[in-house]
Amino acid sequence: MYTGIRVKDLDRSIDFYTRVLGMKLTGRAKIQATKGEVAGLASEDGGHELELNFYPKGSRFATRYLAGHGLDHLAFRVEDIDRAIREAEEAGYPPVLEMKTEKSRWVYIVDPNGIYIELFA
Amino acid sequence: MYTGIRVKDLDRSIDFYTRVLGMKLTGRAKIQATKGEVAGLASEDGGHELELNFYPKGSRFATRYLAGHGLDHLAFRVEDIDRAIREAEEAGYPPVLEMKTEKSRWVYIVDPNGIYIELFA
Repeated sequence: MYTGIRVKDLDRSIDFYTRVLGMKLTGRAKIQATKGEVAGLASEDGGHELELNFYPKGSRFATRYLAGHGLDHLAFRVEDIDRAIREAEEAGYPPVLEMKTEKSRWVYIVDPNGIYIELFA
Repeated sequence: MYTGIRVKDLDRSIDFYTRVLGMKLTGRAKIQATKGEVAGLASEDGGHELELNFYPKGSRFATRYLAGHGLDHLAFRVEDIDRAIREAEEAGYPPVLEMKTEKSRWVYIVDPNGIYIELFA
């Protein structure tokens, strides 16, 4: 099983998911059926695959981009949440929302496509 | 890492992901911070976790639901694609799109929330 998100800018999105979130680029390919391009990413902790789908102008899938609510968020476990927030902020992705219970804390940043990314410890 | 989708009906969505797609329910809990409820699912092939997020009326997260394009699709590998399509159709989820290359074939169904689900062999 894997999760495929649609992206507005493939290079910027690859940069975000590899540099800010520590994922590994596993491949990149043009897709004839969509006239677009796709990139595969693997999570740092293994197991999870994320596919970035880009549709250029002229592709029948290149509808107006609305991040929407289908994808509520993608969540990444981090070792040190304060350090993760600081590093994301330095990379240009400041926290936009924080939630807390007595035991847990979730901090959200927004990816280049408008998708919410949860950081949790 | 995990993927969290927002759902319009938690019971119907759990039914879809467990019965039609073979995922396992790993837990279900009320979340004070959102006034909502969350369910955890694990993929048949292990590794991948999917979180279903439900926000009731009155939750500040219960905005009007648009599946949107952030989540392009969730993809599930199946053993026998013709059988998988037949079973999904019998469960009330007929194929809505099919794509083919010489080597590959992808068939899409739509989950109870309007999210595209890819079946591939």
